[in-house]
Amino acid sequence: MRWLKFTAAGKTSWGIVEGDNVIAVNGDPLSEWQRGTQSHALKGVKIELPLIPRTFYCVGLNYLKHLKEAADKAGTVPNVPDRPEIGYRAQNALIAHDEDVVIPASATEKIHYEGELVVVIGKRAQNVTAADAPKYIFGVTAGNDISERDWQRADLQWFRAKASDTFGPLGPMIVTGLNYGDLLLQTRVNGEVLQSQRTKDLIFDVPAIVSYISRYVTLEPGDVIYTGTPGTTKAMKPGDVVEVEIEGIGILRNKIVKR
Amino acid sequence: MRWLKFTAAGKTSWGIVEGDNVIAVNGDPLSEWQRGTQSHALKGVKIELPLIPRTFYCVGLNYLKHLKEAADKAGTVPNVPDRPEIGYRAQNALIAHDEDVVIPASATEKIHYEGELVVVIGKRAQNVTAADAPKYIFGVTAGNDISERDWQRADLQWFRAKASDTFGPLGPMIVTGLNYGDLLLQTRVNGEVLQSQRTKDLIFDVPAIVSYISRYVTLEPGDVIYTGTPGTTKAMKPGDVVEVEIEGIGILRNKIVKR
Repeated sequence: MRWLKFTAAGKTSWGIVEGDNVIAVNGDPLSEWQRGTQSHALKGVKIELPLIPRTFYCVGLNYLKHLKEAADKAGTVPNVPDRPEIGYRAQNALIAHDEDVVIPASATEKIHYEGELVVVIGKRAQNVTAADAPKYIFGVTAGNDISERDWQRADLQWFRAKASDTFGPLGPMIVTGLNYGDLLLQTRVNGEVLQSQRTKDLIFDVPAIVSYISRYVTLEPGDVIYTGTPGTTKAMKPGDVVEVEIEGIGILRNKIVKR
Repeated sequence: MRWLKFTAAGKTSWGIVEGDNVIAVNGDPLSEWQRGTQSHALKGVKIELPLIPRTFYCVGLNYLKHLKEAADKAGTVPNVPDRPEIGYRAQNALIAHDEDVVIPASATEKIHYEGELVVVIGKRAQNVTAADAPKYIFGVTAGNDISERDWQRADLQWFRAKASDTFGPLGPMIVTGLNYGDLLLQTRVNGEVLQSQRTKDLIFDVPAIVSYISRYVTLEPGDVIYTGTPGTTKAMKPGDVVEVEIEGIGILRNKIVKR
């Protein structure tokens, strides 16, 4: 099922995408919902941020190719982590499909994209095994973990480097029932493919990540986990359009603007 | 004014503390509220977590004495930051006064206290100056940024070291109208004073912190910022009782237990 939060005729609600249409739903897919009767053409609605998580997690260094290229740049040997490297982000970083990434006035020009598969938690998860983890997952969507590389290098924790307002595009749809263990993920800037990798290449796969976090911090319905970015990243400039496309999910598109 | 979230006779509400009593309030001090008629003896109520912030911030390395002792231990020279070092925590770390800090099964014995002054945001703050920052602050309370030092050293970001479930005691009261620029902060374990410092010794004071964060991430009403810990910290063991006392706010007391 393909879930979308949208606004049409001044009303914001959840909906189910079927073909080129979205069917309005009463309620919330994470608790109670009923299919409504109103259908809208997908291209005529405003796509909203699907949700505000209680806690917003990201995994770092989770594709070998990304690790290797970072190590090559630093002239070192890649150090493969023996556990997922988890961090938090601020909720105000989140923006919807088609909203603008606004570069803060004091940022350098090193604003990089990071296309990522994102997990949305469906049920409270505490100390779950990797084998059981899929039962606690509602669905998956796409995310872009926008990063200011100079701040990332300078700061102890990545509070502004990866979570300044608008640095967390998310969406457009949350898809349930997808085999998220093997999807093609691509990131394009102005149409040029710059990242292209299958999610089967994650060092720690989705169930392993959910299980690991749940050993320390209880996951709640609606929490989101960005699972890490593959390969190389590059700087973007104002006016650029960045797209993260994931097989079966769709395209998350955002424009870069300068404050 | 001294605000408390509490439960009495099965009902949870906000209240105003006056002497040894708490007066129930309808509504929420961060938006609309009305003083009720019911009064309860403070010692007969269950003190609750005052709030769940949208985003939960902490400042690191914000007292010279803490920096110096960390540098001495590492055999290095203290490196005074030129800006606040900000990090995020998970909401599920938060617990109320008198609730237990539960050490995860896989933790080492290096579970340290960190007594801290905590700021509660009252109004949406975006790009505010330090001079204007106090207008956006609702009040202050006490916090304990419990830390597992081996995880803090091992992990890139401090997801579990400082935000495992129950690692963030907060409360008991949020106090408005206090001169938070010069309060005595003390941390005691089993009655022994282990940290004692005035908040005037913060490297970045409360208005500077709020102003700095608001340049990158919009602060929302109810967001909380732990402002950093002074001096030395030490390991605690199961059965220990840790108290953070701040002048004008009161005592935040929690017991350490092993899962």
